[in-house]
Amino acid sequence: MKKALLLLVIPVIIHTQTNLIQYVKPLTGTQRMGHTFPGATVPFGAVQLSPDTDTLSYEKNGKYQKEVYQYCAGYQYEDSTIVGFSHTHFSGTGHSDLGDFLIIPTTGHLQLNPGTANNPENGYRSRYSHANEIAEPAYYKVKLDDHNIIAELTASTRVGFHRYTFPAIDTAHIILDLMHGIYNYDGKVVWTFVRVENDTLVTGFRQTNGWGRTRTVYFAMAFNKPFMSYGHAKYDTSVYRGFWRKFDERKNFPEMAGKNIRAYFNFPVTQNEQINIKFALSPVSTAGAMKNLTDEIPDWNFDRVKKESQQLWNNELEKISIEMLSKKDLETFYTSLYHTFLGPTVYMDVDGQYKGIDQNIHQADGFTNYTTFSLWDTYRALHPLFNLLQPKRNGDMIRSMLAHYDQSVHNMLPVWSHYANENWCMIGYHSVSVIADAVVKGNMPFDAIKALKASVSTANQRYYDGLGYYLDKGFVPDDMNSSSVSKTLEYAYDDWAIAQMALKLEDANIYEEFMKRSENFINVFDPSIGFMRPKLNNGTFRKNFSTLETDGQGFIEGNSWNYSLYVPHNVPGLIQLIGGKKRFSQYLDSLFTMHLSEEYFAHNEDITREGIIGNYVHGNEPSHHVPYFYNWIGESWKTQEKIRMILNAKYSNTPDGLSGNDDCGQMSAWYIFSSLGFYPVAPGSEQYSIGSPLVKSAKITLENGKTISLNVKNQSAKNVYVQKILLNGKEWKEKYFIHSDLMNGASIIFEMGAKPKK
Amino acid sequence: MKKALLLLVIPVIIHTQTNLIQYVKPLTGTQRMGHTFPGATVPFGAVQLSPDTDTLSYEKNGKYQKEVYQYCAGYQYEDSTIVGFSHTHFSGTGHSDLGDFLIIPTTGHLQLNPGTANNPENGYRSRYSHANEIAEPAYYKVKLDDHNIIAELTASTRVGFHRYTFPAIDTAHIILDLMHGIYNYDGKVVWTFVRVENDTLVTGFRQTNGWGRTRTVYFAMAFNKPFMSYGHAKYDTSVYRGFWRKFDERKNFPEMAGKNIRAYFNFPVTQNEQINIKFALSPVSTAGAMKNLTDEIPDWNFDRVKKESQQLWNNELEKISIEMLSKKDLETFYTSLYHTFLGPTVYMDVDGQYKGIDQNIHQADGFTNYTTFSLWDTYRALHPLFNLLQPKRNGDMIRSMLAHYDQSVHNMLPVWSHYANENWCMIGYHSVSVIADAVVKGNMPFDAIKALKASVSTANQRYYDGLGYYLDKGFVPDDMNSSSVSKTLEYAYDDWAIAQMALKLEDANIYEEFMKRSENFINVFDPSIGFMRPKLNNGTFRKNFSTLETDGQGFIEGNSWNYSLYVPHNVPGLIQLIGGKKRFSQYLDSLFTMHLSEEYFAHNEDITREGIIGNYVHGNEPSHHVPYFYNWIGESWKTQEKIRMILNAKYSNTPDGLSGNDDCGQMSAWYIFSSLGFYPVAPGSEQYSIGSPLVKSAKITLENGKTISLNVKNQSAKNVYVQKILLNGKEWKEKYFIHSDLMNGASIIFEMGAKPKK
Repeated sequence: MKKALLLLVIPVIIHTQTNLIQYVKPLTGTQRMGHTFPGATVPFGAVQLSPDTDTLSYEKNGKYQKEVYQYCAGYQYEDSTIVGFSHTHFSGTGHSDLGDFLIIPTTGHLQLNPGTANNPENGYRSRYSHANEIAEPAYYKVKLDDHNIIAELTASTRVGFHRYTFPAIDTAHIILDLMHGIYNYDGKVVWTFVRVENDTLVTGFRQTNGWGRTRTVYFAMAFNKPFMSYGHAKYDTSVYRGFWRKFDERKNFPEMAGKNIRAYFNFPVTQNEQINIKFALSPVSTAGAMKNLTDEIPDWNFDRVKKESQQLWNNELEKISIEMLSKKDLETFYTSLYHTFLGPTVYMDVDGQYKGIDQNIHQADGFTNYTTFSLWDTYRALHPLFNLLQPKRNGDMIRSMLAHYDQSVHNMLPVWSHYANENWCMIGYHSVSVIADAVVKGNMPFDAIKALKASVSTANQRYYDGLGYYLDKGFVPDDMNSSSVSKTLEYAYDDWAIAQMALKLEDANIYEEFMKRSENFINVFDPSIGFMRPKLNNGTFRKNFSTLETDGQGFIEGNSWNYSLYVPHNVPGLIQLIGGKKRFSQYLDSLFTMHLSEEYFAHNEDITREGIIGNYVHGNEPSHHVPYFYNWIGESWKTQEKIRMILNAKYSNTPDGLSGNDDCGQMSAWYIFSSLGFYPVAPGSEQYSIGSPLVKSAKITLENGKTISLNVKNQSAKNVYVQKILLNGKEWKEKYFIHSDLMNGASIIFEMGAKPKK
Repeated sequence: MKKALLLLVIPVIIHTQTNLIQYVKPLTGTQRMGHTFPGATVPFGAVQLSPDTDTLSYEKNGKYQKEVYQYCAGYQYEDSTIVGFSHTHFSGTGHSDLGDFLIIPTTGHLQLNPGTANNPENGYRSRYSHANEIAEPAYYKVKLDDHNIIAELTASTRVGFHRYTFPAIDTAHIILDLMHGIYNYDGKVVWTFVRVENDTLVTGFRQTNGWGRTRTVYFAMAFNKPFMSYGHAKYDTSVYRGFWRKFDERKNFPEMAGKNIRAYFNFPVTQNEQINIKFALSPVSTAGAMKNLTDEIPDWNFDRVKKESQQLWNNELEKISIEMLSKKDLETFYTSLYHTFLGPTVYMDVDGQYKGIDQNIHQADGFTNYTTFSLWDTYRALHPLFNLLQPKRNGDMIRSMLAHYDQSVHNMLPVWSHYANENWCMIGYHSVSVIADAVVKGNMPFDAIKALKASVSTANQRYYDGLGYYLDKGFVPDDMNSSSVSKTLEYAYDDWAIAQMALKLEDANIYEEFMKRSENFINVFDPSIGFMRPKLNNGTFRKNFSTLETDGQGFIEGNSWNYSLYVPHNVPGLIQLIGGKKRFSQYLDSLFTMHLSEEYFAHNEDITREGIIGNYVHGNEPSHHVPYFYNWIGESWKTQEKIRMILNAKYSNTPDGLSGNDDCGQMSAWYIFSSLGFYPVAPGSEQYSIGSPLVKSAKITLENGKTISLNVKNQSAKNVYVQKILLNGKEWKEKYFIHSDLMNGASIIFEMGAKPKK
């Protein structure tokens, strides 16, 4: 109640002059492979309340169905029906889960099945049109044509808020579908439990076995008016063996449980009447969801919640104020910044309780616990961006990772974790990179010595993904493990990151041990062909091998052409390996200009022509640092033109504006850094490699109160070449900036021109 | 640690003179239908660690398999193999669940399937012989012949302690079967989760959908020496979708999860080496199980735990010290007393946390939370016995029932609840009887006003089991609900109990309302035939009707002959209804002497010739009060001879010594009361109806420090007729004792004779 009163008393400050949310287009990336969601969420919010446009199963006839891939975030722009609005969504992932607790309001004959895209009238789903759709940060509105209902959604951190406006009918149905989910399959729902506490309140939970093997989400759902009747249908054979024919459990019986359940609630409505629903989530319990519900939104003022949540977005977006050459660039920038602030997401109740990966309930002591760590993606630029823009949150994310380590039976930091589960997706142990980047940059609101210990422990778990071989031989043998070269290269980089952390923390032994390990990239380089190449357990290179093919060649999400450049931590060493600067320059030029035949990527679900430039794949992550490599061979102008080309060609403010999965903000973080003119090539280093800014000016307000001002003289679409840089008034001749220089507050002036400065 | 130190410092007092556990035969009732278990448990313990002798499925080809019925407690005396030792068992129920976490030590080739009774060598189970079996309170020992292993079991409240002595082999296997369970069926196990924390500690949980619809039990298992390797097999299609071929999850990988899992642990052993296992349960979490483990048994001293747990039994059994005419009677008495102290069972962690029926975690504030309330059985004599012998525990049981009410979405007290689930088994709302009996007897360590409110709320839940009809019409219509007459009669009794509670708490309105409701038994009496008879919704009696048949006649676990006497709260009214004392006497005489043809009970799984006397069924509960009815018509001598006959004929100290399900102690509680010479015909009254004591003498030590001494003069097998009673030295002419008289301390002398005193 105290908090509730505060909310009423403190006047809301509206920054009318800088209403930056107007530039955010949440529909960006919802077409094809961006895998973003258009719905309502607050920065790093636990609830992502968003429309789902189809219900494809992960499997068909027991096999993976590749069409489900496009529904990683539930929504595809080209679809013409909305199934309903569910409360949890990943942003930009390339594998998926979630879609918990779908709600849809309907009219007419009660139908509890979703229907199909081709025959929506056979189910509860509805046709809709983009003409009747508004997507803003923390607000989504759409007209459900088949039901003639206006649906509006907003959210606080843990509560989704629905407002449905009904036509002139007698009875409205609100359907709560507990079977619905993203990457669903028969048997994914392990158990659901629903209690109708009274005629305006329902609680329960949903337990699934999907990407998260043992995942439970709890809810509390409040209506602003009483329903007159309710019930459910069960679509499995689980029997309530205690019933003994005592009840008709299907109608107006306040306890429901089973594997596949859809519930409904009937309301009397008059024309234009609005039914409001507050739907709170908890990782802990229904009691926790109740606390979240009453603490975050004590009243029924949808408009106030929308305004306050949008203000939260403005507060975050205002951390960077910019001028751009075009509205398209302005919108692309703030949409990207929006996408970087969607996750990791808060994973604890208002009282600090959360579920750990040991499935026990823990108390977050002095930090906010986060989940959804897509670390193979986000260690590259997203967490470095947080060290600049969100150092406090990044510190709490690392504390969350250390809590994961404490609870891990593997004595490991997270690999790819979500909702109290390690899903082990992708490769490497990039938690250590995230921690090293924070440590090296002095952002240490956590026990850094313990973090170093956790990193070393993680890097020595022999049964993890070929790591035992790597420890024994210095490489992952291709005949013993998949993606062997990618793993070797990424382990080597991660080891360097640990070494940098040890250096900062003055542990010479660990530093030396891991610096040595960081050289292991050499072990998978085949000098006879000048590429990284799979090596067998017997020490010889694999014979049957293609440098262009992505699948089955010892790599993951990249071919040898791209992955051979994955030595971000020792670029001089890599250049030497490739054959010196001249050869390296040729290699890079070829990468960006060669024609990659469709045959090499057509069967990869997440690489399309839009995502690539020559053989350079921007739609996937492994080469995100590569355009900056020209800086190491005296050809910075090539970096500059490549960066500007990628910024313009691979990003936009339209639904098809992302050239690949946004990958929990990594693609967008690349855009933010690169459009500001610099990029963290090797997280764990203080250096940002300099590119070519897209902004005309930028003012970055840091959490420490200082500012970085960036002014770009002679900025234009043609003037992509940096002529001169002034740092705090003095000419800056290095190819990089230093993080600590920026954090002390800095004035940077870029002078641009139409010709390369060689 | 504090507790542990205390355990070491305080000397254990051994009552060598009164080592009463020697008279307890836990195998009693394990043959045929007693449904008791022979394993190790402490009084009211949360762990019942006991051998299971078969693994029959609840269903065969989708249909209930009646053979499973005999395995309600997991063990059948006539079986020749032991499948293993599981940690949870009901005592004496007629429907079942539990059997969680089966452990079996094996030698030789590792086999993860249980095998069959006919071919035990094809699985992990083992042959055994009763010659090599010892069952004592808190201790069970058996030789597993096929493996040549000596298995010993003991337990504390929340921890099972296993000691296995191995022959001369190299490798011992300890199997942990998470699929095993009682009343199992395909799909009953909803989810299991196992973590190998280190090489001596394993944690996890098991979630089932059985009699308890949403039931989860957590565990922590510690070994006294490290295993050298481990693994598991999965027997379902649930896939760990996160694995991506990173691990061979089956061997030495410390996380297992799925629906059907069996794990194993391999140990190097030498001849006669003992492997000890402590296995703690928790209703809350694996963290809770760990707390229970370390708090209750901090060391590895099996013999000390056995001694202390057996001492707990002696302490409880010593509440009544007796003399009997025979060792058989002595053993039957203490075995019965043992059976009455098996449950309800403790259901909370050492820190007071437990799971409520709302599936949230609650803190038991100032009381011990109990579960397993088989109330249709136990309200009759078990809870009244607790008001005499265990008033503090009974108070806590009622507090547990009130906590259930607080958490109930139905606003109801428990009907038949176990492990945070309402299983709705049987009929009535007999929680109110348990509460009323305690209130009327002044045992109120709970909020009695709230308890009355909870009782009234329970008695008015219209959707519960025909109750709406009962409220509207004064009876449950047979065409609208099953067991309509039994429900009407039991509701009427329960209503009287509420009235008695209201009377004691001085609420005149509730008293009057419920006294009126208590007369509803009249509505189902058909004066034209002189029996209780199903009435239809239109107010006429059902035509097609048999007074002898049990099934489908409007009754449950009794026919009209028995159930027509179910008016324990208004015996004079019943006598009048039946047709006066003479007719009533004839009715009772006929009941006990008529021949009931097999056709009337052969198809009932829990009635056999052993359980009946004439048409009187002692093996089921509805007539347990009936033999005392002769007291109301001036024929007490018939009560006396019937009681002695039942005590001798229907109870014994042998495996077949129970004539029906013990029903969580109700059958045994009848024995205790009746052998002491009195019985609570109508719980909720202070009166105990007087029968014929079987003891020669008894001294009952009450919790208030007072004693009841009972001396029976001229006691013999033939002298079953009471000639005279002296209460505190004065002749006592009533047919009943008063509870408060006894609680003040009392000296009772019975003078017996071979002839009735008419």
